[in-house]
Amino acid sequence: METARIGRQVIRLRHPPGVVSFASIGGRMESRGPLAGRFDELDEDPFFGQKTWEQGEAAMQSRVVRRALHKAGLAAPALDMVFSGDLLNQCIGSSFGLREFGIPFYGVYSACATMGSGLSLAAMLIDGGYARLAAAAASSHFCTAERQYRMPVPYGSQRAPTAQWTVTGAGCCILGERGNGPYITHVVCGRMVDMGITDASNMGAAMAPAACDTLSALFRETGTRPADYDLIVTGDLGQLGRNVVAELLERDGFPVGISYTDCGLLIYDRERQDMHAGGSGAGCSASVLCGHLLQGMREGLWQRIVFAPTGALLSPTSTFQGESIPSICHAVVFSNRKES
Amino acid sequence: METARIGRQVIRLRHPPGVVSFASIGGRMESRGPLAGRFDELDEDPFFGQKTWEQGEAAMQSRVVRRALHKAGLAAPALDMVFSGDLLNQCIGSSFGLREFGIPFYGVYSACATMGSGLSLAAMLIDGGYARLAAAAASSHFCTAERQYRMPVPYGSQRAPTAQWTVTGAGCCILGERGNGPYITHVVCGRMVDMGITDASNMGAAMAPAACDTLSALFRETGTRPADYDLIVTGDLGQLGRNVVAELLERDGFPVGISYTDCGLLIYDRERQDMHAGGSGAGCSASVLCGHLLQGMREGLWQRIVFAPTGALLSPTSTFQGESIPSICHAVVFSNRKES
Repeated sequence: METARIGRQVIRLRHPPGVVSFASIGGRMESRGPLAGRFDELDEDPFFGQKTWEQGEAAMQSRVVRRALHKAGLAAPALDMVFSGDLLNQCIGSSFGLREFGIPFYGVYSACATMGSGLSLAAMLIDGGYARLAAAAASSHFCTAERQYRMPVPYGSQRAPTAQWTVTGAGCCILGERGNGPYITHVVCGRMVDMGITDASNMGAAMAPAACDTLSALFRETGTRPADYDLIVTGDLGQLGRNVVAELLERDGFPVGISYTDCGLLIYDRERQDMHAGGSGAGCSASVLCGHLLQGMREGLWQRIVFAPTGALLSPTSTFQGESIPSICHAVVFSNRKES
Repeated sequence: METARIGRQVIRLRHPPGVVSFASIGGRMESRGPLAGRFDELDEDPFFGQKTWEQGEAAMQSRVVRRALHKAGLAAPALDMVFSGDLLNQCIGSSFGLREFGIPFYGVYSACATMGSGLSLAAMLIDGGYARLAAAAASSHFCTAERQYRMPVPYGSQRAPTAQWTVTGAGCCILGERGNGPYITHVVCGRMVDMGITDASNMGAAMAPAACDTLSALFRETGTRPADYDLIVTGDLGQLGRNVVAELLERDGFPVGISYTDCGLLIYDRERQDMHAGGSGAGCSASVLCGHLLQGMREGLWQRIVFAPTGALLSPTSTFQGESIPSICHAVVFSNRKES
């Protein structure tokens, strides 16, 4: 059979699936950031109407999938599959958020690269005829992440200058064999990269080599250059990680210019909002993609973008045990042209 | 394009991928159970040569993938993708276990149904030409699970009669477009089912309705009956859950006889080993499949089996917050004949 793989990591989709619908939801900090106008829904209530933050995160996932369906005039049974994940232990934001829908469900976990892996799998399975319509979703929540990964929120602990701020947000993208676009033309399957970094409050730097590995693979295996894309956007590397990626890519022979940015830099005004190195979390790239980026492509701001969220595959337990931080980056190429 | 879906949940693979290799690893309790002779490797050391139990679980995943590769005379670069998951927070058994391999990696999380979802995704992606060789792996570890989900192990807490024993084990199955078989002919994508059960020490009963939902979908959408399969095997429902599934399936018009069993019942001698309701954990179904079941098929014990592991998509946090237990079951059909 003709293979869709064009190298170790890149897959060229033969019938590029198109975006059918997308939606994003954010919280209070996101409503004060520069992308506020790009969210479908902003909620000042960190509980999102529920009793706990975790239930609030699940409610975000539920609402964002419902809204993406609604915008396309679809009901849940129209979806053949949903891929979803989040940062909570055992991914309860996704399971509790989506349990009511009755949609065939694959839970995915790639930390903050989750939206990249969900989109990749959904796109390949639609391309291959295993699903007609499939959704990818991801979320994160500042309060659930802080208490799970760092400190009880009421402590108000001082944060390192390299630290990032976990986005309270979720995004959902519905892909289909007959979507209006943009289209996913290529998938780049990430590999784990671990450069021995152990500082869990400088995750941008820990994840940068994974972003470089995946982006280099894309350029190398497709024979393209950074300039062939109007925008290259990583997920939540923040300012430090973004600069490390730019440096590593230059060393690999793929210098990126101002067309390279990071969702964690777009979502907040770092100075005015005191966000240190920028935003982070699985909901950071998911909500920026399913608002600002896909809307921008439909408006013609960009014709072709690389969406390359990165994930740090650590846990508090691995950090306590002195382990370094394996990272991964799962990327997809979105294009306004259906040809791959 | 011709679709491979034959209903809401069932996908018929057009070019059924074959099993290229498989391997399993177990710990002390597994070495004293009736399937001891079916493991590739049994280790009395709960640390598997590492300093912590979590590192030990990662070492199991690393060893089991290495061994499956070795048995097929393959090296890691031969694998186009690996799908893996485990029960540890942020799935660190998989990420730390597989970080050295450099294989394109998708992390999956479906609790104890993880092996089912990994095999499903690997099989579809090989069938569609997105990978030539792909592996699915999963693990669990009694000590890491006890301290994360229940009580510090040294407490020696008394266990409820409905409780199960988390298997210390891992399994890896390598699938390929040219595998020798058995072949995966069908994939059944699970949906979340939540019947409102809140007792986290009776997970077999909580998960049974999900198993019934997936198995009923298989029979209904393919027009087959339980008797068309030589063996139907769930993952870790234990004695109570197994009986609930049999009852629910009978009510759905699909009575199963003695050909229905559960990996959690096979792996231990419940009486002699004092295992209460049976074995559990993502490593239970993974190690039983990648030892006893696939070996048995190759020996001709069974020609066609349904492998249907179930997962309880809860966390200690959701239980503390009074939530019920959403469950899921991801199934695949293995057959010694390549036709689907």
